[in-house]
Amino acid sequence: MRLTPATELEYRCSKLQEYMASESLDAVIIIQNADLFYFTGTVQSGNLYVPASGQPLYMVRKDAGRARMESGLKEVIPFTSLKDIPNILADFGYSEPKRIGLELDVLPANFFERYRTLYPGAFFSDATPLIRKVRMIKSHYEIHLMKDAADQVDQAYRRAREVIAVGMTDLDVAAELEYTLRKAGHQGLIRMRGFNSDICYGQIFSGSDSAVPAYTDTPLGGLGLNPSFGQGVGLKRIEANEPVIVDLAGCADGYLCDQTRVFSVGAPSDRMRRAYDDMLKIQSLMVDVTKVGLSWGELYAACLRCAVDMGYVDSFMGAKGSQVSFIGHGLGVEIDEYPFIARGFDQMTMEVGMAFAFEPKAVFPGEGAIGIENTFYLSNEGLKRLTYSSDELVILS
Amino acid sequence: MRLTPATELEYRCSKLQEYMASESLDAVIIIQNADLFYFTGTVQSGNLYVPASGQPLYMVRKDAGRARMESGLKEVIPFTSLKDIPNILADFGYSEPKRIGLELDVLPANFFERYRTLYPGAFFSDATPLIRKVRMIKSHYEIHLMKDAADQVDQAYRRAREVIAVGMTDLDVAAELEYTLRKAGHQGLIRMRGFNSDICYGQIFSGSDSAVPAYTDTPLGGLGLNPSFGQGVGLKRIEANEPVIVDLAGCADGYLCDQTRVFSVGAPSDRMRRAYDDMLKIQSLMVDVTKVGLSWGELYAACLRCAVDMGYVDSFMGAKGSQVSFIGHGLGVEIDEYPFIARGFDQMTMEVGMAFAFEPKAVFPGEGAIGIENTFYLSNEGLKRLTYSSDELVILS
Repeated sequence: MRLTPATELEYRCSKLQEYMASESLDAVIIIQNADLFYFTGTVQSGNLYVPASGQPLYMVRKDAGRARMESGLKEVIPFTSLKDIPNILADFGYSEPKRIGLELDVLPANFFERYRTLYPGAFFSDATPLIRKVRMIKSHYEIHLMKDAADQVDQAYRRAREVIAVGMTDLDVAAELEYTLRKAGHQGLIRMRGFNSDICYGQIFSGSDSAVPAYTDTPLGGLGLNPSFGQGVGLKRIEANEPVIVDLAGCADGYLCDQTRVFSVGAPSDRMRRAYDDMLKIQSLMVDVTKVGLSWGELYAACLRCAVDMGYVDSFMGAKGSQVSFIGHGLGVEIDEYPFIARGFDQMTMEVGMAFAFEPKAVFPGEGAIGIENTFYLSNEGLKRLTYSSDELVILS
Repeated sequence: MRLTPATELEYRCSKLQEYMASESLDAVIIIQNADLFYFTGTVQSGNLYVPASGQPLYMVRKDAGRARMESGLKEVIPFTSLKDIPNILADFGYSEPKRIGLELDVLPANFFERYRTLYPGAFFSDATPLIRKVRMIKSHYEIHLMKDAADQVDQAYRRAREVIAVGMTDLDVAAELEYTLRKAGHQGLIRMRGFNSDICYGQIFSGSDSAVPAYTDTPLGGLGLNPSFGQGVGLKRIEANEPVIVDLAGCADGYLCDQTRVFSVGAPSDRMRRAYDDMLKIQSLMVDVTKVGLSWGELYAACLRCAVDMGYVDSFMGAKGSQVSFIGHGLGVEIDEYPFIARGFDQMTMEVGMAFAFEPKAVFPGEGAIGIENTFYLSNEGLKRLTYSSDELVILS
C-alpha cells in the first residue's frame, strides 16, 4: 500500500497557506474526502485544521488508528464531537480563528450551520478555489501515479479490441472492460466533485445511443440502463459500421487518467470517419498552441473556432441544444479539477504542473458520436501525454 | 426501459404535500438526484417545485426533452437559470412562497445561498426529514423492483460458490462478482445520501482484512486497495478456514437490495462458526419481535441486548472502538433511507410498507468478521424477506 510521502503533504499545506495569506484567512477546515486524501494522505472521517501558519491538525472521528498509520502528518488526534474543536484548538495553542475557509461548494448546508454555531462571530468564505489552485499543480509523485492509471486504461483498450463484436450489448462490453480495469487494480470508485455528479468507470455506448443527451455535464450522454441512471451504458446491441465509444477513467492509488477511443466493426460512415479525423486535428491544434501563460478560455475558444470552421457548429461537444461549453478538464484525485478548459475562464492560465484530459467530440443525433480523449501534462519541457494507446480509430473485422 | 407510473408519482407528491401541511410549508424545491428520480421518475438536472397544493412543476436545465419523455409529471418545462424561477412560478400562477423546504442535508452551502438570494424574505427549513418519511413507505411497484435486485445478488451469491478459492485475492473475487452483477443489469452506481459516503457495489474481504476498521459508517470496514479508498476489497489472498464476507447491493431500475453471506474454504474456527450461528439468532429475534408500532430504537436495543448477553459486547457491529450504533437501515433508491434501526430512534416506529436491510455482524480483530444480512419488507401480512439466498455459512471444499 502506497502512502503519500510526508514531504508531499508538507509542500501541499505550505502552498495552501500561501493562498490563505492572500485572502487573510486564519484557518481552513477541510472535511471532504478528496481534499482529506490530498492534504492528509488518507480519508479517515474528521476535520483537518489548517492554520495560517504552522502545523495542520488532523482531528479524526473514525478511524484514528488508521489515520495515524496512513497519514504523514505530525499531528493526528482522535476526537468525537464538532463542539470540542474550539477547546482542542486552544489546547494546541492555536488562536481563535476570525476568518475561516470551508469547502462551501460541497459542504451540505446543515454542516455549514454547525460550523457557524461553533464560531458565531467568524467570517466564513469558500476555500475551494484556493484548494483547487493547490491541487491543480501536480508533483512528479502524482504524475507517476497517473501514469499507472494510464496503464489501466491501455489494458482496457487492448481488451476492447479483442471483445467488441456485432450483437453484443453495450452493457456486455462495459462488463468486460470494467472487469479488466478491476483486475488491473482499479479502486472501482471515481471521485467527482460537482454536486449531483454520478459516474461509474466512464461511458461506453454505440451508434445512436451515444448521441442521446443526458443530465451530465459531459459532451456525450447516453441513454443508460434506466431513468435512475440515465447516462452511459445501455442495452443497445452493437451493429456493424457504427462507432463504439469507450471512454474510461483509470484509477491507481487514488489518481485518475481519462481516455476515449472509438471502435467500429467494419468501416464507419464517411461522415463519422471525417469527423474523427477532424477531432484529431483539434487535438493537434491544442498540442501546438498550449503553453505556459495561455488562458484556459482562450485555449477553449481557439478549439471551438477550429471546430466551427470545419463545420461542427451544431455537433461539437454535444448534440445541438445539449452542447457543453468546455473541451477539457483537469484531473488527479477528482475528475473535475482545475484547469477548466472552458468558455469564460479567461483570467486563469496554463501553468507548469497542470494535468488535464482533452476531449474533442462530435455528436450526430440518430447516428452516433465520435471523438478522442487523452490525458496531458504540462511539464517543464513542454506538453507530455500520459495516456498512450494508439490514437487510430480501430476498425475491427 | 421501465418508467415510473404517473399514479405512483401523484401519490408520492400528495404524501409529501400532507407532511408539508403539518409544517406549514408553502413549497419544497427538490434538486438532488435520488429525490428527483423518486418524485419525477427521471434525474434530469433541474428543480422540482412542489407547492403546498396542486401540481408540481419540473423545471429542467438538461435534458428537458428526456425529462418530458421519462417523467410521468404533467408540467415539465425547460429553464436555464435559477434567477428565472420566481418569474416562471408567477407565470404558472403559484403565489410567492414564504416558507420553503430544501434538502439541506445534501444541498451544498453555496447552492443554499443562491436560493436564499432568490427569496430573501423567506424562511427556509430542511425538507429531507419529510422526504425521507414519504420515501420510507414502499409501494408494491417499488417492492417489485427490489425483488429484481434480490435476483441480482442471488446470482452473485451462486457465482461466489463457484469461484472463491484459496490463493485468490479479495480483488479477484470482487472482479468476478461485480462482473456477474453487471451482466445481470446492475447499473453500477449505488446511491448513498450521507455526505462523504463512498460505495462501490459493496464490500468483499477475507479473514483479518475484514476486521480492519474504516472511515465508513458501516459495521465492517476493510483495508481497501489504497488510502484514497481505504475500505472494502483489498489485495489480501484468501486462506483456508477463514471467513470470506460477500456484502453486495443489487440495483435494478434504480432500486436496491442488500445481502451479506459468508463463505469459507474448509471449516472456519469454532469461534467464527459459533458467532455466525449467534448472528442468525439475532436475525431470528428481529423477525420475531418486529411489528407495526415497535420503535426503531427499541428494536435496535433488543438486538444489542441479545448480542451482549451472548458475549459480543466488544465485537458486535464493529471492532471495539469502531462499533456503529445501528443494526439495520432502510433502502430503496438510496442505501441509507429510513428506517434507521439504531440507537436513539425511539420516536419513530415500524410501519407497513417499510423495507430495510438487517445486518447483525461480529468483528474479531486479527482474525476476521462474520455475519448475515438480508433485506426485509413489512407488509400487510407481516414481515417478508426479499433476499432469498440460503442463510447457511457456505463451506467450500
